[in-house]
Amino acid sequence: MSAGDTLARIRDEKPLVHQITNYVVMNETANATLALGALPVMAHAIEEVEEMVALASALVLNIGTLSSHWVESMVAAGRVANDRGIPIVLDPVGAGATRYRTDTARGLLAELRVAVLRGNAGEVATLVGVDAEVRGVESIAAGGGAAELAREAAETLGLVVAVTGAVDHVSDGDRFAEIANGHELLATVSGTGCMSTAITGAFLAAKPDEPFEAAVEALVAFGVAGEDAAVEARGPGSFHAGLYDALAALDPGGLDARARVREQ
Amino acid sequence: MSAGDTLARIRDEKPLVHQITNYVVMNETANATLALGALPVMAHAIEEVEEMVALASALVLNIGTLSSHWVESMVAAGRVANDRGIPIVLDPVGAGATRYRTDTARGLLAELRVAVLRGNAGEVATLVGVDAEVRGVESIAAGGGAAELAREAAETLGLVVAVTGAVDHVSDGDRFAEIANGHELLATVSGTGCMSTAITGAFLAAKPDEPFEAAVEALVAFGVAGEDAAVEARGPGSFHAGLYDALAALDPGGLDARARVREQ
Amino acid sequence: MSAGDTLARIRDEKPLVHQITNYVVMNETANATLALGALPVMAHAIEEVEEMVALASALVLNIGTLSSHWVESMVAAGRVANDRGIPIVLDPVGAGATRYRTDTARGLLAELRVAVLRGNAGEVATLVGVDAEVRGVESIAAGGGAAELAREAAETLGLVVAVTGAVDHVSDGDRFAEIANGHELLATVSGTGCMSTAITGAFLAAKPDEPFEAAVEALVAFGVAGEDAAVEARGPGSFHAGLYDALAALDPGGLDARARVREQ
Repeated sequence: MSAGDTLARIRDEKPLVHQITNYVVMNETANATLALGALPVMAHAIEEVEEMVALASALVLNIGTLSSHWVESMVAAGRVANDRGIPIVLDPVGAGATRYRTDTARGLLAELRVAVLRGNAGEVATLVGVDAEVRGVESIAAGGGAAELAREAAETLGLVVAVTGAVDHVSDGDRFAEIANGHELLATVSGTGCMSTAITGAFLAAKPDEPFEAAVEALVAFGVAGEDAAVEARGPGSFHAGLYDALAALDPGGLDARARVREQ
Repeated sequence: MSAGDTLARIRDEKPLVHQITNYVVMNETANATLALGALPVMAHAIEEVEEMVALASALVLNIGTLSSHWVESMVAAGRVANDRGIPIVLDPVGAGATRYRTDTARGLLAELRVAVLRGNAGEVATLVGVDAEVRGVESIAAGGGAAELAREAAETLGLVVAVTGAVDHVSDGDRFAEIANGHELLATVSGTGCMSTAITGAFLAAKPDEPFEAAVEALVAFGVAGEDAAVEARGPGSFHAGLYDALAALDPGGLDARARVREQ
Repeated sequence: MSAGDTLARIRDEKPLVHQITNYVVMNETANATLALGALPVMAHAIEEVEEMVALASALVLNIGTLSSHWVESMVAAGRVANDRGIPIVLDPVGAGATRYRTDTARGLLAELRVAVLRGNAGEVATLVGVDAEVRGVESIAAGGGAAELAREAAETLGLVVAVTGAVDHVSDGDRFAEIANGHELLATVSGTGCMSTAITGAFLAAKPDEPFEAAVEALVAFGVAGEDAAVEARGPGSFHAGLYDALAALDPGGLDARARVREQ
């Protein structure tokens, strides 16, 4: 596993990452993807999603401001992605907050072969039937064991699960990694979770056959960028601008030495 | 009235503020809400707005890029909010510019019990039948008396009206306050009006039974943040980033001393 | 031709620029328009676009996240614009990437009298049947002659074509200009192409009868702002914030001296 090597490959290959995501963060995830070194494309119309995803190396599905037409397009794009072996990362924003979000996230997981599920503890807990306190999409707390949750969800759902928070936990049911990179300022900017999902898409594009590694490496890269952006930040606004600077400035050669990953 | 005390309460309780708002400013109002210390959630699908608003402590309705499905969801969410005593703030963006916006804003005011109407002089004038020059959504001028307009609109509509501009005017028909906080750079960034509406939502969440106080305090807090952000700004871009820094750095203990409010 | 004089007129007249654009960049193009000195308004509902465009001095159509309802509104607004002599600038984002985008861009060009087509080489090449490598919306390369492409597209389509890239090429079929202003950091921020289209709209509003001059001047102004923003940028995030500062700080008096335009 080497986040640095994969980052170097992303910058070299500039994979196209098709994102069907929410209105709140579209500019943010496009810019995070671009700053990292990949190419974002946003397209949601049923008339074009199948054709667009076929051009892409990864598909990001994010239900942050969902409505029925968008869900239909997510399924259509996801099916083509599955047929062609293009990896999918799903961000179940707000699952647990409303039945519509929970049902939609479950439906996408049932209808599509998702490579990585990236959510916070409350969202992931909801999807595997574990009780969680959910309030909207920003503040969500699960009872204690995010590590156990990641492992259990990965096993139940049969995919890689990344439960992000102050510390991130990734599991494929078998392997497990804890990533301590990041900074508390990330929680003060809306859409940083969605950005980490988009970054996961870029890493998946570079190593589609190793979703566990891709998910861990993406969180290392994004976390290190958060640490760098925090150095000169005076608050959430300057941190947010600095985050794109930091993503673009990530040094592939030095990245692995900064990874704070504990594997089991 | 104490903007500082209410801000402290917002940061302590982190109320969820449900926003059905426009595409242009979604990220901006989410981040302003979060920087202040409350929790934003954006959701507009008819399938979930009633459930989402029931989790929230305030509802923000903003017609900046409206279309028919969104209006339907605003009404549905608004009804649940009314049933449950969750306060609503309405931002009639562009009322007066097109009949559709004027009619929609009037329709929302007729169908829902709105706690605070927050608009610029032209928008508010349009809604109470006073002549105003309206051009799009950014540049709008009413003839002279914004103070009188706020009072008249509050009386006619039976709610709290906040007419914002270089100086803000708030009235509940009976009481009246003039807020001189703020900075001219606020007019150079798109969506600062919408942000002040979202901030009003957060203050309403903390004091749902005192909408006049909430509206005044919100404009004090937002205005002071604007003053702070202006100090090191080199233009609209750095001001915009600095505004979130300033909102997050607002000091509840020192806020009231900086309020430039004249009450009558 | 004087970008400085036109900029001074824009700041004086503050023309309203109606934009039916994509979700990713709405905030960005609104803020770029505002920073330049014009007034943006975003409106896409079929119920209001005809009324809104009639208030405007230019119409910006951008298909970056298109769907059928939006296209319908673009046509409706465009027809009113044509009837009233309000100039239209079209940004065919992603034409060539999917058939839907290509067909929509072609349809808009067929149904409306467009004053300026502003795209990258791949998009423009697609629309005139020249082979191009297209990947999503960000990375697009045409084979060699962007100058020839601009000229050929302008002649074929009978309008002003601005092919932007590291160097921009503008032609009306007869005249031709090459603009070397700009900075490579512009390519690291999503939506800078869309911003240049919005800025073109503002210049068209100020000189509706001279679309060739408007297109060239807009690219000079935007390019110079990019150069200024790059001076203190530490990466794409700080560059992005600085771009609005730079647009607002553009000096009409000194602008023409900084133009790097070669006319033929």
